[in-house]
Amino acid sequence: MEASKSLREHGLRIGELEPGPAGTIGDVAGVSVGHSTVSLTGVTAVLPGPADRLWAEPAAAGVAVLNGAGELTGSVQIAEWGLIETPVYLTATMSVGRVYDGAVAAAMAAEPLIGVEAVVIPVVGECDDSWLNDPREMPLQSEDVEKALADAAASSSVSQGAVGAGAGMVCFGWKGGIGSSSRLARGGHTVGVLVLANYGDGPDLRIDGVPVGREIRPAREHRDPAGSCIAVVATDAPLGSAQLTRVARRAGLGLARTGSVAHHGSGEIFVAFSTSARVPRGEPAPPALADSELDPIFLATVDATEEAVLNALWAAETTSGRDGRLFERLPHEPVLELLAHHGRLRD
Amino acid sequence: MEASKSLREHGLRIGELEPGPAGTIGDVAGVSVGHSTVSLTGVTAVLPGPADRLWAEPAAAGVAVLNGAGELTGSVQIAEWGLIETPVYLTATMSVGRVYDGAVAAAMAAEPLIGVEAVVIPVVGECDDSWLNDPREMPLQSEDVEKALADAAASSSVSQGAVGAGAGMVCFGWKGGIGSSSRLARGGHTVGVLVLANYGDGPDLRIDGVPVGREIRPAREHRDPAGSCIAVVATDAPLGSAQLTRVARRAGLGLARTGSVAHHGSGEIFVAFSTSARVPRGEPAPPALADSELDPIFLATVDATEEAVLNALWAAETTSGRDGRLFERLPHEPVLELLAHHGRLRD
Amino acid sequence: MEASKSLREHGLRIGELEPGPAGTIGDVAGVSVGHSTVSLTGVTAVLPGPADRLWAEPAAAGVAVLNGAGELTGSVQIAEWGLIETPVYLTATMSVGRVYDGAVAAAMAAEPLIGVEAVVIPVVGECDDSWLNDPREMPLQSEDVEKALADAAASSSVSQGAVGAGAGMVCFGWKGGIGSSSRLARGGHTVGVLVLANYGDGPDLRIDGVPVGREIRPAREHRDPAGSCIAVVATDAPLGSAQLTRVARRAGLGLARTGSVAHHGSGEIFVAFSTSARVPRGEPAPPALADSELDPIFLATVDATEEAVLNALWAAETTSGRDGRLFERLPHEPVLELLAHHGRLRD
Amino acid sequence: MEASKSLREHGLRIGELEPGPAGTIGDVAGVSVGHSTVSLTGVTAVLPGPADRLWAEPAAAGVAVLNGAGELTGSVQIAEWGLIETPVYLTATMSVGRVYDGAVAAAMAAEPLIGVEAVVIPVVGECDDSWLNDPREMPLQSEDVEKALADAAASSSVSQGAVGAGAGMVCFGWKGGIGSSSRLARGGHTVGVLVLANYGDGPDLRIDGVPVGREIRPAREHRDPAGSCIAVVATDAPLGSAQLTRVARRAGLGLARTGSVAHHGSGEIFVAFSTSARVPRGEPAPPALADSELDPIFLATVDATEEAVLNALWAAETTSGRDGRLFERLPHEPVLELLAHHGRLRD
Repeated sequence: MEASKSLREHGLRIGELEPGPAGTIGDVAGVSVGHSTVSLTGVTAVLPGPADRLWAEPAAAGVAVLNGAGELTGSVQIAEWGLIETPVYLTATMSVGRVYDGAVAAAMAAEPLIGVEAVVIPVVGECDDSWLNDPREMPLQSEDVEKALADAAASSSVSQGAVGAGAGMVCFGWKGGIGSSSRLARGGHTVGVLVLANYGDGPDLRIDGVPVGREIRPAREHRDPAGSCIAVVATDAPLGSAQLTRVARRAGLGLARTGSVAHHGSGEIFVAFSTSARVPRGEPAPPALADSELDPIFLATVDATEEAVLNALWAAETTSGRDGRLFERLPHEPVLELLAHHGRLRD
Repeated sequence: MEASKSLREHGLRIGELEPGPAGTIGDVAGVSVGHSTVSLTGVTAVLPGPADRLWAEPAAAGVAVLNGAGELTGSVQIAEWGLIETPVYLTATMSVGRVYDGAVAAAMAAEPLIGVEAVVIPVVGECDDSWLNDPREMPLQSEDVEKALADAAASSSVSQGAVGAGAGMVCFGWKGGIGSSSRLARGGHTVGVLVLANYGDGPDLRIDGVPVGREIRPAREHRDPAGSCIAVVATDAPLGSAQLTRVARRAGLGLARTGSVAHHGSGEIFVAFSTSARVPRGEPAPPALADSELDPIFLATVDATEEAVLNALWAAETTSGRDGRLFERLPHEPVLELLAHHGRLRD
Repeated sequence: MEASKSLREHGLRIGELEPGPAGTIGDVAGVSVGHSTVSLTGVTAVLPGPADRLWAEPAAAGVAVLNGAGELTGSVQIAEWGLIETPVYLTATMSVGRVYDGAVAAAMAAEPLIGVEAVVIPVVGECDDSWLNDPREMPLQSEDVEKALADAAASSSVSQGAVGAGAGMVCFGWKGGIGSSSRLARGGHTVGVLVLANYGDGPDLRIDGVPVGREIRPAREHRDPAGSCIAVVATDAPLGSAQLTRVARRAGLGLARTGSVAHHGSGEIFVAFSTSARVPRGEPAPPALADSELDPIFLATVDATEEAVLNALWAAETTSGRDGRLFERLPHEPVLELLAHHGRLRD
Repeated sequence: MEASKSLREHGLRIGELEPGPAGTIGDVAGVSVGHSTVSLTGVTAVLPGPADRLWAEPAAAGVAVLNGAGELTGSVQIAEWGLIETPVYLTATMSVGRVYDGAVAAAMAAEPLIGVEAVVIPVVGECDDSWLNDPREMPLQSEDVEKALADAAASSSVSQGAVGAGAGMVCFGWKGGIGSSSRLARGGHTVGVLVLANYGDGPDLRIDGVPVGREIRPAREHRDPAGSCIAVVATDAPLGSAQLTRVARRAGLGLARTGSVAHHGSGEIFVAFSTSARVPRGEPAPPALADSELDPIFLATVDATEEAVLNALWAAETTSGRDGRLFERLPHEPVLELLAHHGRLRD
């Protein structure tokens, strides 16, 4: 049993659908992900396509809120226009301003018409990493946005775990962070999900329905469930904004399967976009699928979200932070044994 | 092994919280439930308290929609005023008008000031029972509302399964219908849930995380997942309407655990009310809990919703209906064996 | 000065846009309106096209709520699916059930596949006519729906004032009811609005910005502003549901210009549909305008809504009802004099 | 006729209610406003009370969106929790990040528990001032937030016009900016409104219903109506978050009376808070008014919003900016003559 294998490589199957080749949001053609990690905090960028075309050809998008104790800038505009004009950025709560500022700078650098023909509102989501990271120190700078974008441009795969915005996150009492997964939906479209997982009350953790949280606990229990989870859903299915809003809402069902009850202090905010429904400024939205074809996308979204959270837990490393706090990574061997005991690991 | 035992009596435990004495929504003091069954359709009434006080002292309430392919009359007013002025009625889609009409008549009979000082908008939710019931026949009459209310007044327990509005419902390819459950939330409040369960794609069914739907299938598969699920959440916690809206939203997380992906054609609509937050007309809302005390209510709602669905499946009887269709009840013995095999039945 | 002239014929111009030939919602090709008036109450049907095609080819639609003390059945489904499958019906609050029931019957009569392939949720809005009509008497029957549909089929024009659902309505202390208007939007599309006007505090009434309510009062003041206003917006512009939701929201701005503050007890609920964006069941939505072309539609909607309310007031006749109550029609001559004094009547 | 007189001092009366002593949002006890102006852009802070108590005792709040082509950070959290934990900041679109960053720094400086017990999400709204200000230059720094707060602490009155966030704004083709007004609502509560007015198509401008925009035009017409208007509503009435959401929604009706149709490219976003409904962290919300007492607050909000916009136009000075553009202030004398001609100026 090697620690570097993924849960799927160990035989876990969340749902019946197959993932894409990489098993990450990067399986949606055109999507790239980059990180800048600064000490115990950071920024992550998820791009629907090349950054220099996003403002001229925004991507159809939708947003959904399961519990709104959080922030996703741009969400008001997404709700009205159904578009994103920048990458989706993720960071720590009190760094949203710096990332917004860096995102504006990056957008202006990529597109000379910004500020001339119209302005731009970037999309920046957050979770609170202050269990590990001291948020008063604020080491992240607006320039880290460019680093994350450069990383996205240079990376052919999606790094997961305690990286970028995920550096200081905590999930079900274990070290959390960035996780991703994908599914090949019936009908031929790909759905990818990336989560910033920073939520959950330890005993509630379920893995593929197995009550792992009841059986396996960290040495030092942490029972403050107020955290958040941002999910980014990408698809190559040509969907309109109302459809993508509905897709985004399904991310919450994937979280529920992992044990989320969407605590009062938590920000479960989800954004979905389509890489094939780009809407050049001033032009009509392109044709979209029939609503009756959404069910396969919904199922893929729920499954991929569930697995993305598990992947975040699986990829994260034990991390120590402020005030002598230490968050262990989910212990692989006992979990695999428990899953095997419940018949969940296929050969 | 007796068929008449509940899943809980067989040892299944959904979550760690205890249910109330009856294990139904009736555990919330003051709440009563009545049914009128007419052939393969019907009406179910859920009352927050005596019917003749509801208009004069509406109950604080909230509504949430996970997927809105359905109807809950009164939902616009609940969203604005945060109140329900009548019982919550459940019925078949095309009978909503008759139940609304009967509900108005019942409200006028109970309260002479209706139509004099103000009017009333009843709360009527629906699912589509037309897999079994021929909806063009419409045997249900508005007078059945009074029968359901009389049944509620006469009943000390909550009937479940293929009864009232649940008579013709289908769930994960099995016979569905009315199910209910309750939880004693940490902090001392009781949460009760009643569902009208008519949704789900068979292979997706999970029971306490065990993938029952992958293993056990009806003899004659039915793979049209377009159905609905209305959930009614009752609590004796003194909550305001914004809080109850948030509670209602959690019902969807309970459905997710059973395998719901909230299909395009489905109406997942949830209404929550408080029996201890009654708001006499023209008066201020009574004091409510702090938001920081909501997490135990959220957890209880998710757990009770999950179990309510399972109870609907467990209580329903095999039913034959239109066009020679037959929907089996979920087969108890194989399911219990599977649950036992996964270590889910406690002694 | 003849009483039978419209305000426009007297020279009033609301905004700069021209109305269509009839100056009603009927100017949107395909739209028809019918009424059944029963004593002091009634039902009004607004059809986007032939009734027998509506279920097979629903019309793209959106709904918006300014103040939700009211009911529009189907609104949950419109918010999710962006479609209407039946005419929009208007009636009195406590008659919604009967109209829903009649609407289901009418839909089944028109379309044999209803109840076989799927069910139908009709769209029924209401205002409270109980200042004039005794709502406990309930003379309206579900059969009146067929009468309203027959009237729609037979009528080449749109009757306004104290007719159909408008029979018992009150507006700014004067007799209210059904009003309609239309505009030719820049860009070539037509927008029509029909309102059921039953709202407003007398002194707040403004006509084209002239504070008529401060100057002209009914002999017997009526200062209970809790009423409602349903607006139905029709357009031949090919719009998607998200766009129509935004169009519907603009109806509230038209009401604001007449003096509405959307009182607590009022149901300002608006539904918009497109006659040229029909979506055959299971098929994708047709191409829509670019969002950047919406402004002319918005302006036309605001102007037409404002004028529709004025037309309701202008067309209504003095009406006496329950408990010796009498509501005068807005007195034409003093109003025209005041408008002329303020320079509002063009030659 | 002196230019320094307000419209009210010239005899204009918007509605029948009296304003408070200063006629600005500062009439709501505890509310203060400060600005930092940097060239043609800036930041404005609106405080519900002393900055160092806001995080420990957030103010009940609600948010409403009429058209969402804009940003108000914190709006997701306000919608969920019904609270604001920081002042409301206003700035230019692309400066939101810097103001957010400065607001976090200011909050940490004022409250040592931020970052220790929990984090903070500031409330930052924006309009696009790029008709005058070159947004690519970004002279505003996060430190300007402290300057605006210091100005608020030092100011006993509310500066209006081309100041703070209003420095570069445009409204109905004239110079726009910050405007404010107040009303003494029936029932004894005060309502104050501050707007950042940057919207409107010139010919649509109405002043107290008089079609000023049809009659008086700037020398150089500017017909790009895509702008925004943020409104901040403050009241000393003890209201809960759901009530404040409803109050916020009424700001749009005030804008409608001035001629707004809420253009596609516009961000009409409104936030309302109560100075007397402070909610110490972890405690229940205090008692609130009955919903039936909201109508006077609604009326006061609509009237005050309308007048706040007019005050912004009246107070602004002719301003020249980028690319040789010049926006005149609304010409006082012709407007007063027109208003007098329509009988709108009382003695």
